[in-house]
This record gives sequence, C-alpha cells and structure tokens, in this order.
Amino acid sequence: MELGSTVGANRLFAPDPAQRRVAREFYEGVAGLPIVSPHGHIDPRLLADPNATFGTPTELFIVPDHYVLRMLYSQGIRLEALGIPARDGVGQPAAETDDRRVWQLFADNFFLFRATPSGMWLADELRDVFGIAEPLGSGNAAAIYDDLLAKLARPEFRPRALFERFGIETLCTTDDAADPLDSHRAIRASGWSGDVRPTFRPDGVIKLLVPEWRDNLDALSDAVGREIATTAALVAAVDLGAESAYAASLGELEADAIFANALRGEATPEDARRFAGHMLIEMARMSVEDGLVMQLHVGSVRDHNRALYERFGPNMGGDIPVALEFTRNLQPLLERFGDDPRLTLILFTLDETAYARELAPLAGHYPALRLGPPWWFHDSPNGMARYFDQVIETAGLYNTVGFNDDTRAFCSIPVRHHAWRRSSANWLAGLVVRGLLGEDDARAMAADMAYGLAKRAYRLDAPGSEAGR
Amino acid sequence: MELGSTVGANRLFAPDPAQRRVAREFYEGVAGLPIVSPHGHIDPRLLADPNATFGTPTELFIVPDHYVLRMLYSQGIRLEALGIPARDGVGQPAAETDDRRVWQLFADNFFLFRATPSGMWLADELRDVFGIAEPLGSGNAAAIYDDLLAKLARPEFRPRALFERFGIETLCTTDDAADPLDSHRAIRASGWSGDVRPTFRPDGVIKLLVPEWRDNLDALSDAVGREIATTAALVAAVDLGAESAYAASLGELEADAIFANALRGEATPEDARRFAGHMLIEMARMSVEDGLVMQLHVGSVRDHNRALYERFGPNMGGDIPVALEFTRNLQPLLERFGDDPRLTLILFTLDETAYARELAPLAGHYPALRLGPPWWFHDSPNGMARYFDQVIETAGLYNTVGFNDDTRAFCSIPVRHHAWRRSSANWLAGLVVRGLLGEDDARAMAADMAYGLAKRAYRLDAPGSEAGR
Amino acid sequence: MELGSTVGANRLFAPDPAQRRVAREFYEGVAGLPIVSPHGHIDPRLLADPNATFGTPTELFIVPDHYVLRMLYSQGIRLEALGIPARDGVGQPAAETDDRRVWQLFADNFFLFRATPSGMWLADELRDVFGIAEPLGSGNAAAIYDDLLAKLARPEFRPRALFERFGIETLCTTDDAADPLDSHRAIRASGWSGDVRPTFRPDGVIKLLVPEWRDNLDALSDAVGREIATTAALVAAVDLGAESAYAASLGELEADAIFANALRGEATPEDARRFAGHMLIEMARMSVEDGLVMQLHVGSVRDHNRALYERFGPNMGGDIPVALEFTRNLQPLLERFGDDPRLTLILFTLDETAYARELAPLAGHYPALRLGPPWWFHDSPNGMARYFDQVIETAGLYNTVGFNDDTRAFCSIPVRHHAWRRSSANWLAGLVVRGLLGEDDARAMAADMAYGLAKRAYRLDAPGSEAGR
Repeated sequence: MELGSTVGANRLFAPDPAQRRVAREFYEGVAGLPIVSPHGHIDPRLLADPNATFGTPTELFIVPDHYVLRMLYSQGIRLEALGIPARDGVGQPAAETDDRRVWQLFADNFFLFRATPSGMWLADELRDVFGIAEPLGSGNAAAIYDDLLAKLARPEFRPRALFERFGIETLCTTDDAADPLDSHRAIRASGWSGDVRPTFRPDGVIKLLVPEWRDNLDALSDAVGREIATTAALVAAVDLGAESAYAASLGELEADAIFANALRGEATPEDARRFAGHMLIEMARMSVEDGLVMQLHVGSVRDHNRALYERFGPNMGGDIPVALEFTRNLQPLLERFGDDPRLTLILFTLDETAYARELAPLAGHYPALRLGPPWWFHDSPNGMARYFDQVIETAGLYNTVGFNDDTRAFCSIPVRHHAWRRSSANWLAGLVVRGLLGEDDARAMAADMAYGLAKRAYRLDAPGSEAGR
Repeated sequence: MELGSTVGANRLFAPDPAQRRVAREFYEGVAGLPIVSPHGHIDPRLLADPNATFGTPTELFIVPDHYVLRMLYSQGIRLEALGIPARDGVGQPAAETDDRRVWQLFADNFFLFRATPSGMWLADELRDVFGIAEPLGSGNAAAIYDDLLAKLARPEFRPRALFERFGIETLCTTDDAADPLDSHRAIRASGWSGDVRPTFRPDGVIKLLVPEWRDNLDALSDAVGREIATTAALVAAVDLGAESAYAASLGELEADAIFANALRGEATPEDARRFAGHMLIEMARMSVEDGLVMQLHVGSVRDHNRALYERFGPNMGGDIPVALEFTRNLQPLLERFGDDPRLTLILFTLDETAYARELAPLAGHYPALRLGPPWWFHDSPNGMARYFDQVIETAGLYNTVGFNDDTRAFCSIPVRHHAWRRSSANWLAGLVVRGLLGEDDARAMAADMAYGLAKRAYRLDAPGSEAGR
Repeated sequence: MELGSTVGANRLFAPDPAQRRVAREFYEGVAGLPIVSPHGHIDPRLLADPNATFGTPTELFIVPDHYVLRMLYSQGIRLEALGIPARDGVGQPAAETDDRRVWQLFADNFFLFRATPSGMWLADELRDVFGIAEPLGSGNAAAIYDDLLAKLARPEFRPRALFERFGIETLCTTDDAADPLDSHRAIRASGWSGDVRPTFRPDGVIKLLVPEWRDNLDALSDAVGREIATTAALVAAVDLGAESAYAASLGELEADAIFANALRGEATPEDARRFAGHMLIEMARMSVEDGLVMQLHVGSVRDHNRALYERFGPNMGGDIPVALEFTRNLQPLLERFGDDPRLTLILFTLDETAYARELAPLAGHYPALRLGPPWWFHDSPNGMARYFDQVIETAGLYNTVGFNDDTRAFCSIPVRHHAWRRSSANWLAGLVVRGLLGEDDARAMAADMAYGLAKRAYRLDAPGSEAGR
C-alpha cells in the first residue's frame, strides 16, 4: 500500500512544474518515516483486545466522526437518522438506524463534502486503506458497504494490524483525570509491541461550571482513594482544553475559597474563570517539576448548540470557536515560567488571527513556548498553508512541534499525516523555487516536520519516556 | 457581446497553463447561465418606465457609486467637484458640476483605481457593455464622454434593454419598510417580462437612534394605515443591516417599554442595542412563520465621517467596518431557530476574520444558517479568493448561497457576476489540478456557484415565489 | 555590486515562467532607483564621524538586532552568551562575551533562521554587501568572522562609504524629544553630501506610566531651557509609538489636571490612556499647523517579558503585539482633522486583521490618512504579499506610502528595500498576467512603490525639506 500516494503522485502540490518536481522529491524523502501521534482521541480499548474489530463501515466512518456528523446535520439530516443514540433512548426507529441504511444516506449526501478535508480524508481512507478507488455515491453505496464489511472482518483490518501497517511508532491517547487506564495496562501486559501512551486531561475537574464537574471530581476522588477538598489536591495533571487562554495567579486562600464555593454548588462564572486561570499556572508549575509536556487547546465554545448537547451529548459537531487573546492573558503564566527551559508549553488556537499577531511573536521569544500545528477546523490544505505562511517567518520552524492528527477516526491517522507531509513538502518547495531556502536545508526541515519536531517536543526520544504521563 | 470575456479569455485565472486550461473550460461552461441577483440596490424606477434612460455618463458611472466617490475623495477631490449636491444646496458652482467637467476630472484621476475592483469593473463596463476598449485617461476623456452620451440615448442602452441583454433572470431591489412599492407595481402592470422583486429592509424603523427614526416610523404608520405604538406592530419585515450581530430575547414588556422610551425620544444607546437584538429574533420568528428568507448584513459603522454625512447624506463612501463577534451574539437566536429547517438566515460579514473562525463553523453546523458571498469591500478578486480558501473547507459549498452583486451601479451587474464566475472557475480548477476535486464534481459546483445556489437559497425556484416579500 | 540580485535573478518571484518574466522586467526597471528611508533607527553617530567603523561582525550583525536576539533566546540561548551587557554589569564572563565566540554560537544556531526574513536578510548582507556567498554554519564561522573583520576595517566598509554605495538618497533617524541632535549638526557641519534627517518621537514624555517618564520630561525641560508644567508645553512633536490607536479630545483643564497628577507621581492607567489619546489629537493639530508628517506605529506591548527588560533594557526581542481597533478609536481625531488636506497621518499596524477591515477603508476615504508599509514582524515576503492582497484593492495604491526599512541594522537597509522592490514587482506581475493591470500602469506603480510614494508622502521632494522636523 502506498499510503497517500495512490491517486496522483502530485496530489496537494502546486501546479507549477518546477515547484511540483521539488515538492515531490521532498515528500518522497519523508513518506516512509514512522508516524508519531502525540495527541489524539483514539479509544485505547480498540488496541487492548487483540481481536477487537472496527465493526461496520457506519461504526467506523460515521458514528465517531463529528466532522461528518456536523456537515450532514447542517443540511437538515437528523442525527437519529445517522444512527446516533439519543441520551434518553427515544427516537430511534430500528429501520432508520440500520447501519446499511445510514451508509446509504451518507453516500447519497457525500457531495456535501466536496472540497472539504473530510471529503479528502474519507476518499483517501477508502482508496489507500481499503483499496476502493471508485468515488462513493448513491449508486455504489451498497456494493462499497459490502466490500468494507467483508474487509473489516478480516484479521488484517483489525486495529492492531492497521496500527502496524500505518507505520505508527507512538500513539498517545487522551484520558480523563480519573481514568484508571485499564486499557493501557492491558496493552502493556499483552506483550504487543505497539507503543500506546496515555496523556492526562484535567478539564473535567478544573472547569467548575460544567454540569458533570461534581461527578468528575468524585470519580477522581475514587481513583486516587481519598477525598479532594482543596485546590492542592487537584494539581496533578496537564493538557488543558479551555475557551480562553486566561491565566491568573491566585493566593492559596482565594483559590481554596473558590473551590469551597464550587463544592457547595455556588461557584459563579467569575469564580470559574479565575479558578481555571489559577489552575493553568499550577499545571505549568507542576509540569516544570515533573518534566511533563503541557498543551493548551483553546478557543472553542463547547456545546454551542445546547439542545443538541442535551439530546445527544458532546462531540456531535456543535462546538464553535471564538476570538482569542494570548498576549495579555498568558503574561502572568509567562512571567512565572516563560523563561524556564524545563517547561514545554505547546499552544493551539482555533483563532488564526493570533498566528502572526500574537502566537508567532510569543513562541519566537519565550524559551518555554512552542506552537502546535493547525488544529481541528484548520487541519486542512488551506489551514496548513495559512499556518506555514503566517507562523514560520516570525516563530521559526524550530519553535513549532510538527503534526498532531488529534483524531477520533482511526483510519484517518495515516491520511492526515500524509496530507501534512505533502503540504509541508509543497511549502518548502515553494521557498526553494523562489530562492528563499537551500535544498539541503529544506530536506532537513521536511524530515523534522514529518518526524523530528514531534519526537523532540513531546520528549519521545528517550526509550520508555512518555508524553504527558 | 461576450460579457466578461472580451479582453483575454483567461482574465482572473492563475497563470499556470494547466490550471488555466481547466479554469477556462469551467468558466465557459457557466458563462451563459442567466444572472440571478437576489440582493442589490438598483432603483426600480429605472425599470418601471419603459423609456427611462441612464442620463449622462457622469450620472451613470460616478454619482451613484460610493466606491468611486470615496476613492476620489480620499485624494482630496471634493464631492462638490464630482457633482454631488450638498443637502443645503450651497456650494455647487454650475461650472464645476457640469457633467462633462466631472467626467474629465474622473478620467484625470482614473489612475487611482489601478489594481482595485472598481477600476476593473469600470474598464469591463466600458469595454463589454459599451464597446470602448481604450483605457480611460485624460487624453480620451472627452471623446469617450461623447461616445457614451450618444449610446446612452439609444434604445438598446435603456435600462430594460440592458436588463435583457445582461441575461438577468431575477433582480431583487431593497426597499424601505414604508415603501409603497409603486415602481414594482408599475413594472408588473406594464406587462414587461423582466422579473424584478422587492425585498423588505426594516433597519430604518428598528434602529432607534438613527436621526430619521421617527420620520421612518411615521411613514410606516402612513403606509400601513394605522399608528404603530407597540413592538408587535413593527414585527413584519426581514433583511437587516446592523453594526453587530447581537441578538437578545426580551420579554414583551421590556421591549414595549424601550419602544415607548423611543417614542418619547428618550431611548439610550443600550436601549437601542437591546431593542435591535430583540427585533432580530422577532424577524427570525416571523421569517419562519411567513416562509421568508432573512439576511443579516453586519459590521459597518455607517456615516463614520459625520461631517460628510451631514453635508451630503448617506452612501458617500464614509462607512467603515468594525470587528465582529457572531458565536456568542447569535447564540440566543440560534437557540430559538438555528435547528429549524423552515428558517433560512443568510449571514454577511465585513470582518473576514470571522470567516474561518466563526461563520464557517456556524454554517457548517446549524441547519438554518447559510453564508452570503464576499460583500462590499470584499467583492473583489482577492476577497473572493480569501472567501473560497477560508470558508468552504469548513462550511462546505452547500452552506453558501452563490453570488450577490449588491450594487447601485446597474452596468456593474454583469461584470461583477462574471468576475465571480471566473474566480469560482479558477478556484475549482486549482483544486482539480492539485488532485483535491474530480472534474465532474467541479463542473457541478461551478454551475451551482453561478446559478443554482442562489436560486435555491433565496427560494426563487418556484414560479411566482419571492425573495423577501 | 548587484544588490539583491546576485543569487538568482528571480529570487522572490513566483515560479510561473510568464509571471516571472514580467516580474523580472519590472524589478530591473526600478532596481537602480535611489533608496529613500523615511523611518528607521540608525544611530546618527555612525555617520557623524567620517572615520567611524562598524566594529566586529558581532557588533554589526548580532548585538543591535533584536530580531536575531529573540530567535536565539527563544531556543534557550541566554543574552549574556550573545554579548549583551546586563544593566547591573553582572553575569558576563569575559570568555563568553568574546565577540568571536559569540559569532561561533550564532553560526552554530543559524539553522534557526531558516525560512525567516532575518535569515534571508543576513544571507543577503553577507553575500551582496560583503561578497560572502557560502552559507554561514559551524564549519566556516571562524573563517567568515576573519574575513568580515578584515573588511570592516577597510575604508570602503565604513558607514559613510556604505551609505553611498547603497545608493541612499535620504535617511531619517528617530530621535527622542529631548535629543540635542548633536550628531545631525555634526553631519551637516562636516560638509558630507549624505542627506540624514532627524525625526521627532515624543513617546517618552507622552506615556505617563513608563518608568523613565520623569527623567525624559526633565531632559526635555533641560533641552528647551524651561520647566514643562502644562500640557501645552508638551505639544511640539510628532511620530508616536503606542499600544493602541485610542484618541480622545480632552479639555485643557482635564488634560492639565492629569498632567499635574503625573508630575506628583499619581497618574492612573486610565489617566495615562486618556492623556495619550488627548496628545494624539494635539500632535495632529500641531502637525497641521507646522506642515509636519505624522506617523502612528501602534500595536506592541513593549517589554512584555518584564524580567528580561529589567535585566537588559528595551529592544531585546521581548515586545509582543496585540489586537487593534482603529475605526472607533480614531474617530475623534478624524472628526477634527480627517478631512484636512494639510494633514498627512501615516498609520502602521502589527495587527494585520485591521488591513482589509479597517485601515484600507479608512485610508480609502479620509484625505488625511495614508497607510504605512508592512512593519516589523510583517516586513517579510509573506507579510508583503498579505499587505498587497488585503490593502490595495480597497485603499488603492495611492493612499499608501511606499516602503520603510525601520531598521537598527545598517547593512539590512538595501536588502530590505530590494526585497520590497522584488515583492512589489512580483505582485504587479501577478496582476498583469491575470489581465487585471496593464503593463504601462504596472511600470508606473513599480516606480512609485520603490521611490515616488515615499518621496511624496514624507514631503521629501522639496530640496531641503524634512521628514518630521
């Protein structure tokens, strides 16, 4: 299998023949490098059981993918018709949620994904992972469903087999604060060689106003085997996802007073904001002490469509970004730890206006800061081009961290990484043909973008080291 | 006449020969489609009288076009010297406002429009509509004036004749809340086949603090034949133009209290803001009930140059955009109607930073939302390229609505639509040559962008249906 | 010497052969024009003494260049190791600050500048000014150091000789309010033909809360020979650098009350903000009266890294931009002077989102406004491309002012101007090959962008005239 290269060796490259020739050479130089996936949302249970399968095509391609769900929903297709169970279990006529009918509905509407990254990924996965080159449509939906269903039942399409075929060297999962990590223990106990690592995401216990906060806190208490009644007891985790990058250093008394308010169910929005800001700095302090890598994914109003959230739960495609401010919001954190070489804080944004204005200047100055790759809505050919154009001139390449796939869709891992490698190669080739970069420098950069930067930034070099913990 | 294609069949296409060849084929496939103009500012009186003419070249090309006025004004040319009457009637030496002298002044300064869309449109109109290929300048200004003047007097250059020659299938005008629509009645009564439709713009009676608010309200009272003393009486219209996208749901008591304040001349800026937010939701509610399409054009500080406004009135080129926030501001409206398939709410922005950050994610999720095309300052080759690059990957093409010309300059209608069709074809060709889109898909998208999307989004399919009402 | 053209005649041009051919012709047409540098930070002492030299390569290329310092610092290299003296004089082991060792450290890390404008400028300077074509790296660092050291000692590499070789017609420096301008007097007294002019920067005495405010005010008092106790006494200068573009017109009483607070050391942040806004309008008023050109450079949080500032002082690479608002903030100033043809106010931004949204519409309307070129982080190939694409369609070229190098690095002056001329030529060529601009128009624009616009906007046409005063 030639992942990412079956259809047209020049896919994603600029049409100019000179640039295209250079881009192709650069891409071919890095196409075979292993995949390092330091941040994503693959369920580790898929890899804990050697006999696990992906189920039906609908279960693999549609149900877990909020990119797919939102686009179909935006055109009036109800989630019930896509096999998504409502929380209350009502509203799912058996016929409607039959996986084969859902697949047909998806294929009937596949034109909606024209010129979108989801459309590109899905076509790439069908072609490069499953050998189905014919474009999906109403007419061939049933035949393709049967083909996929048969393949998914075969041993070579089980998760562990695809993990190996994809050339994944390290895969990091994202785990709740209270997660007992049983699947990770099972993977290690199984003797399988796949390197799958947990990372710690404390959002659920830091955001005081999310509805599940108290449940999350209780689960964490159970997991650690003792009651959590003070701020200090929370300070044990990294990798935050927040709406803003606001950081604030509170005294222990104020922090604990807010925490006590929250335990009584009386926290205000301002309490929640200040507490999250305080915890951000605490997380940075602990990351310094423990040698962890810290990530900050900011800018999304989660569950903007509240009715949809209440009916179906989170991650249904109803999260919407907002404008962000980093320069002033991060200053308290950077005053404390920005110059500290022991900290690696990786910033992600959904507000691209911050790339050239704030993030590249910040990362191009503070030793502790690095910029994460284009993320979520911006993990796309244009999103990558804007990132390269707006970030690197000021931040320099070496204050960035390579690629994250950040995906819930297992088969999209290789196609996303190959899209990044192709886009990187094309960008570098553009610099070379305009006389702005030497070819040897460009080759070194291509390899760093595909592999080396992620490996180093997430401290995955040392055998047995871990991203997060 | 080959509208938009006389000078160089490859105008607006990328220079790469492969992309250019594909773009040209796509453009040629849609160049002959009819023009659907669902939003604009053409005066219907031009079409109500079969014998109406456009007057002089100055009256056609300069006086009604705030794009032209602002650029000349920015370089120190007074509006009096361009034939614009001051409200008080003072300051217009007859010689200075002689149309022929104004035209010469315009031609002397035509270099100011180099590399601007106004420059492109004006050159296209002269060449493609009037057969004048020689670039306008000081030396040929008088001869071109004479040529134009003679042509404008001929029957084939009357508004109705050009309407037909331009291939306009449907033209929507923008009409005040109190407008009796006499011209529209006259057009229908005349038996002419041109499809010209009114749309309802209620800004004048919803923005409590505009100086003319009370006059507008009284005119509306006269038009409907009864006093308007409550909020409910206002709720009868769609198509808003506002500074922000703020929406707020007020109780009837609060809304009526604010309205009463306004009737007493005592509304505060906060009153005005909350009332406009309330009316936005009311307009959405009514659009759902009446099956109307609702548009929201936001982001302009109207009459930023107050001295100019006081002297000459609105639409003189002194409106300046501001930053916009949609995600939080629209949430109250979307909670009420965002999932309602009966609503079509089309959003326009003058703040392009919202494209990828807020508007595309919103339109790519909520069934009721669609995105309007690049508008006003962004109706330009670069503005279109940024729109395609920043919007479509996330929103998908099918959550957009094709093109609006939004113009007061009649002869710019075809050249603007052809610039859009060329830019669309070029964008699609870029995707094809980079292997991101199949040619058949691209052809279908080109036709939708030129015609189908506007036709469907504005519900113009059904014979006799109306955009707005 | 072929400045900017040694390596590849097509550097910075798009790869398409047709566009490249046109770009090259346009560039060659303007490559020989003199350099006009109306804004920058060259120390005039370098030009006051005919025998001054640039010292060592480290003193020339590293120590004064905050672009270089910040990138090295961002990767954990301490400023002490780069030869930067701490304010308290502690922490500089002699061996570490040996200029030759610093140069080696710089060369060892030169890969950090790949694909950055600093990397491009440094390579261009070594090659085009010093004839060193081999890329700098660890292996040749010592040899290149020796080569440079020997050349810098020769008469033809003294500042005045390079000034002449670079073809600089006019160079403006930036001078504090209290500067006695001794170096400028010395330059004029020396009989040397170089045209070097001071410009007045009053920030130090207008920003009430900068730590050195009182010292600056006292120095200004000494310079003018009388105590400054009222606002009126401050109103004598132009060229502001501020965090925001906020303008406010205060009464004399309020302004003087704030000023008195500041003299007592009791000014609040709100006082400082309002006073700066007031002084902005006062500066505009005085510029109108005195025929001065006023510049506004906004958007940087100076000394964001406070610990670094306290240890090493300003301009060490720790300034970080923030989002800006112009439309509402500038309205009070524009109401007073926006229509006044005697004022030229040139706006610069570090927030590119304002280009298309606010700055181009403002400059495309108000006669007094012009837009400065892409600045600081945006003085780069991509920064220029974004500026051309986002500004010119709406503002028009003739509301811009050509190029500023704004540099502290003397040898970067010609390479920056040539990068601008190449980027301009490439942009114009792109318009020509897409049929959007005639070749004759483009040639005229190329010459204006390289020379004419700056000459006229800064009123440098008249012999003996001055930019600033």
